[in-house]
Amino acid sequence: MTFEVLDKDLAGRIGKLRTRRGIIETPYLFPVINPFDTTITVGDIEKLGFNAFITNILHVRRAMQEYGVTDVHELLSFPGPIMTDSGAYQLLVYGHVDITPDEVIVLQEKCGSDIAVILDFPTGETPYSEASYRVNETLKRAKALWSIRTDETILWVGPVQGAPYIDLVKYCAEELSTLNFDIYAIGSPTTIMESYNYEVLVDIIFAAKKTLPLGKPVHLFGAGHPMMLSLAVALGCDLFDSASYILYAKESRYMAHDGTYKLQDLEYFPCSCPVCSRYTPQEVSEMADGKVKLLALHNLYMLGSEIRRIKQAIKEGTLWGYVSLRLRSHPRLFSVFSKFKKYSFFLERLDPVTKPSISGLFFYGYHDSFNPKVVRHFKKLKNCLHHLRWNVLVLLPRKDEALSSSFIKKLMEKIRNEIRGFENIKFLFYDFPFCLIPLELEGVYPLSQYEVPSKIDMLTKRYVSIKISELLSILRPRSIVLYNDLKRWGKHIEAACRKSCDNIKVLHTKEPYELRDLEVLLLLLKEIAGQ
Amino acid sequence: MTFEVLDKDLAGRIGKLRTRRGIIETPYLFPVINPFDTTITVGDIEKLGFNAFITNILHVRRAMQEYGVTDVHELLSFPGPIMTDSGAYQLLVYGHVDITPDEVIVLQEKCGSDIAVILDFPTGETPYSEASYRVNETLKRAKALWSIRTDETILWVGPVQGAPYIDLVKYCAEELSTLNFDIYAIGSPTTIMESYNYEVLVDIIFAAKKTLPLGKPVHLFGAGHPMMLSLAVALGCDLFDSASYILYAKESRYMAHDGTYKLQDLEYFPCSCPVCSRYTPQEVSEMADGKVKLLALHNLYMLGSEIRRIKQAIKEGTLWGYVSLRLRSHPRLFSVFSKFKKYSFFLERLDPVTKPSISGLFFYGYHDSFNPKVVRHFKKLKNCLHHLRWNVLVLLPRKDEALSSSFIKKLMEKIRNEIRGFENIKFLFYDFPFCLIPLELEGVYPLSQYEVPSKIDMLTKRYVSIKISELLSILRPRSIVLYNDLKRWGKHIEAACRKSCDNIKVLHTKEPYELRDLEVLLLLLKEIAGQ
Repeated sequence: MTFEVLDKDLAGRIGKLRTRRGIIETPYLFPVINPFDTTITVGDIEKLGFNAFITNILHVRRAMQEYGVTDVHELLSFPGPIMTDSGAYQLLVYGHVDITPDEVIVLQEKCGSDIAVILDFPTGETPYSEASYRVNETLKRAKALWSIRTDETILWVGPVQGAPYIDLVKYCAEELSTLNFDIYAIGSPTTIMESYNYEVLVDIIFAAKKTLPLGKPVHLFGAGHPMMLSLAVALGCDLFDSASYILYAKESRYMAHDGTYKLQDLEYFPCSCPVCSRYTPQEVSEMADGKVKLLALHNLYMLGSEIRRIKQAIKEGTLWGYVSLRLRSHPRLFSVFSKFKKYSFFLERLDPVTKPSISGLFFYGYHDSFNPKVVRHFKKLKNCLHHLRWNVLVLLPRKDEALSSSFIKKLMEKIRNEIRGFENIKFLFYDFPFCLIPLELEGVYPLSQYEVPSKIDMLTKRYVSIKISELLSILRPRSIVLYNDLKRWGKHIEAACRKSCDNIKVLHTKEPYELRDLEVLLLLLKEIAGQ
Repeated sequence: MTFEVLDKDLAGRIGKLRTRRGIIETPYLFPVINPFDTTITVGDIEKLGFNAFITNILHVRRAMQEYGVTDVHELLSFPGPIMTDSGAYQLLVYGHVDITPDEVIVLQEKCGSDIAVILDFPTGETPYSEASYRVNETLKRAKALWSIRTDETILWVGPVQGAPYIDLVKYCAEELSTLNFDIYAIGSPTTIMESYNYEVLVDIIFAAKKTLPLGKPVHLFGAGHPMMLSLAVALGCDLFDSASYILYAKESRYMAHDGTYKLQDLEYFPCSCPVCSRYTPQEVSEMADGKVKLLALHNLYMLGSEIRRIKQAIKEGTLWGYVSLRLRSHPRLFSVFSKFKKYSFFLERLDPVTKPSISGLFFYGYHDSFNPKVVRHFKKLKNCLHHLRWNVLVLLPRKDEALSSSFIKKLMEKIRNEIRGFENIKFLFYDFPFCLIPLELEGVYPLSQYEVPSKIDMLTKRYVSIKISELLSILRPRSIVLYNDLKRWGKHIEAACRKSCDNIKVLHTKEPYELRDLEVLLLLLKEIAGQ
């Protein structure tokens, strides 16, 4: 098996990609190497923990023609996995490239590339008809590969083109899926990202991911900025490449988790990497020689640690929270939340159901209601509620367990002793973001361990209220006893109850689970039971 | 001048604190040094860029008694600024300390401390009456200092006690303000922070800062976690100390920007520091010898880079955005937003009015309406609107300048040519978060450069609508022409207009500033002008 998934969160995953020259752990970002630029060498970058590189086949051809070097591993002085890119980016930028699709295949085999890309035809920003032509041309070239190639140990990449036209992306992904590529790629979203058009980027990735075989790794071309890597991983991208670490450095630009700085605008380095811990921005600015290399190294440290941060989040099952944070790097990136709302059902299907509970989940407000783990709870609850009927529901506020559990235990004991037909009483917690949690599910992940702020904003309250009334309209209880946490929820929960049930008793409290409320609740239950 | 403020943002500042052994640039965090623990030395930590340290006077006394070392600089092998702590923390934790307040003063002078703290009496979690007694005891000791001390080159710290009782904090700060301490401190909030009670912490800092002289630096004792440093700085704290870097390391705990990990829960190091770039968590775990030191170094790299990150944000005027991000480290920290709402007017007074516009401001939603820069705009607008009257207001959606400015220029030209009394027409942009922006102020910081998401949530729309109707009720225009961006705002702006004016003409659009709307707007204006 070429690609093995070790862990998952949302549509993101940690995986092992086996190449003939070693394993690449994904998500992985290939540093782009220009063998004719000696500012920074493969050896320098290896020390940072990168163990696979990408270079352009046009560089390789030049090395063959001008220097007689035929082996890409010799060219980069690196024995591990090397990916070669096909020149499609040059095709996009310059409109032409003086190499044929067939030559690109032959040359990549000849130079010993471990991961090779066909010469696809990027759609870039062309009109629909031209984009459609280029998709078909890309597919033609993809099909031709199988009759030309001779070496079956190379991993071949099939790039999905068609962006920004979603139907073309889908069509291209569908057709490519029938060809057995080892890796799929999403074609140059560079122009889209340069204009910060992240909403369109998300649409494209979703369209491709929904169509491509899930077992294959997906490469997102040209997406090498720490502020959007976690988003791309969360949507199911496994591989990335970045020339920006060096291109930025040459323009004195400095990558940060949440954006890019001009070196001259930095008074302090906001980073702990070896470069930033040792020098000040002023010192680096004034280095005639070392400046570009130091900035490139910083950019690579940043990218490397960002990938590790994302992997750790996948391990923990907290990728949603991390992506949410990174989306706050820029308002245009934040706009992507509306897409999460749209695609939450797709993400829910891919997101793993259980996770080792290293850390609890954190929820902050309305936007977290699109978290697939929340969407799943709601879906499950809706499904199971359809089959159940209770006469009486008791809705309780969720508070820290120590406080509520002994109260509830006592309450249930009293009910068992004093109320006939108690089996027909159902206890549910109400809370954000899960809305309703049956008492018996409280210990189950992710309901067992989560934290919410002490105050909840109005939009979030309204969301919970709407969702609860939706669930209650399925349950159709004869009566409801609401233990209403007035301080936290105001009248929002009560309103939801009144919408779906006529017979309601409410006990308002500002400090839930004080013992004096026990008898009052029991009384309300007795009244409702007509006892 | 002992303390010089170089730059400001919110209530935070970058400053120079002059000690007799060198300058400390604030915000600064003093690593706590235990001279009897050789796991990590002052020399190790200096290399990370820390240039001032703190140690406990009880350690110094032990060194004097047991080893005959009388000089704290000799004891720590460090010639730069050293602060000594008074043993008050031990008093808090153990209930007693075998040293008198007078001895503490004498000893700190004798050992050559550069920054010294009186032996205050921390209130911790005591009942009110006991806390009140301790505040008075602290004040007695503070007053006694001035008759005991002999060396005027030492900077003395006056700790504000009384927490969590706000009136006691205020009283203590008031009394201490009359004594001319070089530095003020906020007494041990450790217990409050351990229980994640950040809302109370903010109340305490505000109470102290509002009362203490603004020109003096403020030290927040025992607050050494990267996830809350930016918050404390934003509220006006300048100095910090941290023993946690080493205490955590000894418990195999690892600091991150947004929390603390157990080493065993880390599969990947989410950081770019020299330790995390070189080793894996597994490798560090298995080092019998180096583990604690490497973790301590990582923790210090983390703290150092966090301080630099905060300083850079102050320089840029983007501290609000950075704090907002860090508040999303934990829902309990996020709860602090409600305090920002409460104290926004205080923050507005301290926040600088102009800033070099290195980068624009980013706004994401409702919570950003508490940003002092937003609060200030609203306050100013309200004040100036009181003096002005226009017959007709034209409300325009804010869109990227290139698009809107030529449209508006053409519109105004037509109005000038075709409508009599055009001087009595006022143009305003509506937008989040500034609500209304007079056309002529559009180029003024911070209105000139800001970004908002493409979609705005309902809570934020409601906020804007409420604020606009508040402003309109001051302006009381005879009529309003609303150019309504329906896609972005729905009916929210229209509703705000209708609340405060009877004569309204609305042109709905989904793509504002298309040329075809020009004539329609002109027509509406003519109708309203009765021409």
